Amino acid sequence: MVRRILLVSCPDRPGLVATIAGWVAGRGGNILDLDHHTDVESRWFFLRMLFVVPPEGAALDVLTTEFSPLVGAFEMTVSFRDPTVPIRMAILVSKYDHCLVDLLLATRHEDLPVTVPVVISNHETVRSWADLFQIPFVHLPVTPDTKPQQEGSVLEELQRARVSLIVLARYMQVLSGDFLARVGCPVINVHHSFLPAFVGAKPYHQAFERGVKMIGATAHFATTELDEGPIIDQETVRVSHRDGVADLVRKGRDNERQVLTRAVRAQVTHRVLTWRGKTIVFDE
Amino acid sequence: MVRRILLVSCPDRPGLVATIAGWVAGRGGNILDLDHHTDVESRWFFLRMLFVVPPEGAALDVLTTEFSPLVGAFEMTVSFRDPTVPIRMAILVSKYDHCLVDLLLATRHEDLPVTVPVVISNHETVRSWADLFQIPFVHLPVTPDTKPQQEGSVLEELQRARVSLIVLARYMQVLSGDFLARVGCPVINVHHSFLPAFVGAKPYHQAFERGVKMIGATAHFATTELDEGPIIDQETVRVSHRDGVADLVRKGRDNERQVLTRAVRAQVTHRVLTWRGKTIVFDE
Amino acid sequence: MVRRILLVSCPDRPGLVATIAGWVAGRGGNILDLDHHTDVESRWFFLRMLFVVPPEGAALDVLTTEFSPLVGAFEMTVSFRDPTVPIRMAILVSKYDHCLVDLLLATRHEDLPVTVPVVISNHETVRSWADLFQIPFVHLPVTPDTKPQQEGSVLEELQRARVSLIVLARYMQVLSGDFLARVGCPVINVHHSFLPAFVGAKPYHQAFERGVKMIGATAHFATTELDEGPIIDQETVRVSHRDGVADLVRKGRDNERQVLTRAVRAQVTHRVLTWRGKTIVFDE
Amino acid sequence: MVRRILLVSCPDRPGLVATIAGWVAGRGGNILDLDHHTDVESRWFFLRMLFVVPPEGAALDVLTTEFSPLVGAFEMTVSFRDPTVPIRMAILVSKYDHCLVDLLLATRHEDLPVTVPVVISNHETVRSWADLFQIPFVHLPVTPDTKPQQEGSVLEELQRARVSLIVLARYMQVLSGDFLARVGCPVINVHHSFLPAFVGAKPYHQAFERGVKMIGATAHFATTELDEGPIIDQETVRVSHRDGVADLVRKGRDNERQVLTRAVRAQVTHRVLTWRGKTIVFDE
Repeated sequence: MVRRILLVSCPDRPGLVATIAGWVAGRGGNILDLDHHTDVESRWFFLRMLFVVPPEGAALDVLTTEFSPLVGAFEMTVSFRDPTVPIRMAILVSKYDHCLVDLLLATRHEDLPVTVPVVISNHETVRSWADLFQIPFVHLPVTPDTKPQQEGSVLEELQRARVSLIVLARYMQVLSGDFLARVGCPVINVHHSFLPAFVGAKPYHQAFERGVKMIGATAHFATTELDEGPIIDQETVRVSHRDGVADLVRKGRDNERQVLTRAVRAQVTHRVLTWRGKTIVFDE
Repeated sequence: MVRRILLVSCPDRPGLVATIAGWVAGRGGNILDLDHHTDVESRWFFLRMLFVVPPEGAALDVLTTEFSPLVGAFEMTVSFRDPTVPIRMAILVSKYDHCLVDLLLATRHEDLPVTVPVVISNHETVRSWADLFQIPFVHLPVTPDTKPQQEGSVLEELQRARVSLIVLARYMQVLSGDFLARVGCPVINVHHSFLPAFVGAKPYHQAFERGVKMIGATAHFATTELDEGPIIDQETVRVSHRDGVADLVRKGRDNERQVLTRAVRAQVTHRVLTWRGKTIVFDE
Repeated sequence: MVRRILLVSCPDRPGLVATIAGWVAGRGGNILDLDHHTDVESRWFFLRMLFVVPPEGAALDVLTTEFSPLVGAFEMTVSFRDPTVPIRMAILVSKYDHCLVDLLLATRHEDLPVTVPVVISNHETVRSWADLFQIPFVHLPVTPDTKPQQEGSVLEELQRARVSLIVLARYMQVLSGDFLARVGCPVINVHHSFLPAFVGAKPYHQAFERGVKMIGATAHFATTELDEGPIIDQETVRVSHRDGVADLVRKGRDNERQVLTRAVRAQVTHRVLTWRGKTIVFDE
Repeated sequence: MVRRILLVSCPDRPGLVATIAGWVAGRGGNILDLDHHTDVESRWFFLRMLFVVPPEGAALDVLTTEFSPLVGAFEMTVSFRDPTVPIRMAILVSKYDHCLVDLLLATRHEDLPVTVPVVISNHETVRSWADLFQIPFVHLPVTPDTKPQQEGSVLEELQRARVSLIVLARYMQVLSGDFLARVGCPVINVHHSFLPAFVGAKPYHQAFERGVKMIGATAHFATTELDEGPIIDQETVRVSHRDGVADLVRKGRDNERQVLTRAVRAQVTHRVLTWRGKTIVFDE
């Protein structure tokens, strides 16, 4: 028996769980973990299921084909995943290394079931980290004038690396709408504030000016509207009047990397669905 | 259609979800929320399901009878519940009122779907709270000599009140094994430490002596082994060298009531199963 | 020896601590607790000191007079306080009772060294709580048309009660600039969001719409700019896609009351100074 | 003007702050930050002071000598520190790298004002991390038979490196009383439980068996009594019935490194005093 994951979203109606569970049982499979949620406002049904099936007929395209009658009947959006195959994940980074290192370390500790085929940066600063983890490092500097060409080069590298997830680990460039339209896979970003507070530049400076007593970090999907994409995870940490901007930056570092790595873990363990600008994050 | 909850535990085997979901569909019902967990060590299956069924045949005894063939076939322990019927819950308390008030307030705010038919105390101290909430208050003082008789009186009051849950809201008497054997329903206690640290008397004094930097509270089912019952919820709060025992008591108060009310909410929304000295607490 | 507290703010310069500590020693006093902070940007000095002095000459006006040469020499703003005298604190509230009850309960538990001479509300809803705690309750209903007159009546009640602190415990009326200009003492409000996120009305609805993964509460001084006053304390709590607006309200309740009571405790134990739109909150 | 720190502990008596602050003022210095605490039970006085003095006469031995009359008069234990001189800190580690990496990364980010002259391990596993950070790595394997000799070799390396702090970053060997008696500087350890819960071996297994709903980590000074030394910092993280031992280990990793790095930061910024088996940790 081999493990597979199924993600489903569709209009809610009676019998969905029975139908899906019956389909698994009919193939000689068994469900190990099933979590479902219905959004009461929109009457929309979301399901994540970890199940085992006999290895013959367990290929993702076979499963997808054989499940397709249900897709048609129930207007489902479905995705079969193989949890034993690591996600190919590119990391984009500028000069700050803490999120990058946390992701690479989590990968080595097997907390993240991913392969990182490439680290791309607009600076040389973090090259030694890529070297240490023996990951190809691509330096693609950018200026306001060269941004379109640089984004084209980034896209080429991503396609060459055949990634299905891009993580912006404190990549300090705003990606263009054109880039996002062409990238073809989810892009997860970390913003160093408790969104929607302190959007845009220098959120720790903004937080210091306002005199907040907690700072935050937010991992979200990048969309064309800056800092407005669906939120995957957030975390806060206490600060006081004794903390200057430099202290907020220091305390925030630990917060950012935790939130980003946690959000990436949710994504690469196939727990995240998006719906009308929000996320469903199935519990681990 | 009316709402019902089913709780199941049994040995794990293929097809359980499909069988249960199919049974619901076969009755013209629909599953609103299904959460299942399999304990990998013991290969034991746990499920909580919120579902709707047509009102005819929705009585709990009817459902139980009609589900019984599955119980036999799969060695299940099952329990059907009606989420629209408030749990009858007794509160036992001594002199500290903070947990009692939090439970009563949560009840009034409809955060706890319960009815409190009786508050029992070995002191008169908290009578005014019972009066305010218009709940019968029974004063049953106790001394070491009169303990067996007092426990007998408490049991009589509980039976008269027909409760299906007892909450010890800082009730400072250790219940005898005989009492627990005869009480006939779950008993939830709150211990003012992060169990298993600081079992027994005066945990805040113990915590102060040890110089911990966090204190805790633990809600657990009372069993014959003091402070050893299955843990339902825990929470911690930071303390410092500036905090004396009185400060730990003050900070702990807020912690205790939060943990206890949260654990009671889990229980009365039918989310808690016990298994081999631990709990499964299905997410809300 | 009797206990006194001194709060100082002034431009930073060498020798301030020595001067102040020397002044105490020169009067035969002793410092029990001294905490100071210098804001590095503005080079401003803040100090809180708990000290004992002989009872003769310990009256606040005597201390103030005798300390006045230092005030002149160092451009100080100072305030002597008597920690053994409870603060007279009015509570304004609308229909939600959770913050009110938490404040009253904390007062009874002696966590808050205050006297509450009056509870004022624009509704009758919470009268029974005031009755239970034997506190005068004043019902002053308000409509858009009668707002100026109602605010006048509130001011009269506050003056009659001779309060030195006003707490808005979910008082759902925006106080006018005129009211705030005439009230003559600090006003602490709780806003049910993590400010500056979700200012204004219905923050839980806003939070639900945005799909945040944590909600917050903020206690701050009320100023003429709505939700823009100096922040005293904040706290957050996790939420998920399973939480509807009603769940945010429920989880938020516990958060709001904790934050508000904590902020009030800071204020009434003489730990809060404001400076350029922010607070210094000396640690307990 | 140059920065210095003074740490004082002594029996409490009137005028201590005035005397100390006056001494600074008398040398033409200025206090930037002063925090003091009096333990009410033992009537013991603790003070940390950051101050500036003219560079002439600012050498630590000069300050110590000139302060010595006060030491004699008030039975003080004092220590002058130079915050601009990084602490020389050795790291002992076994196979787990997460605490080591966090410490080294925090050092590079200048969150820890330290120099790490040596990393010592009983395994080769983490050598590449030392190489990356260009820190000498010493491999000193140990067996039960060779433990005394190995500890001797470790002591030699530590003396050669002239360290004033030793951090056990998941060093899985129990240090002998003889080692601790001879080491001559503080030793900070991290234990992967919420002490005093789950002392000794395999705390995550113990936590799993007990069914706790939170796990913890504790940074403490190593003493001859295993897991009984003064606690510097603790932190907890939520777990659920879905978490197996491997999940506790994963969640605990992040917790351990945070607690250890935070405790080390407190120590190397000269904020920690010990007193009767506990710590005073002055706030940052």
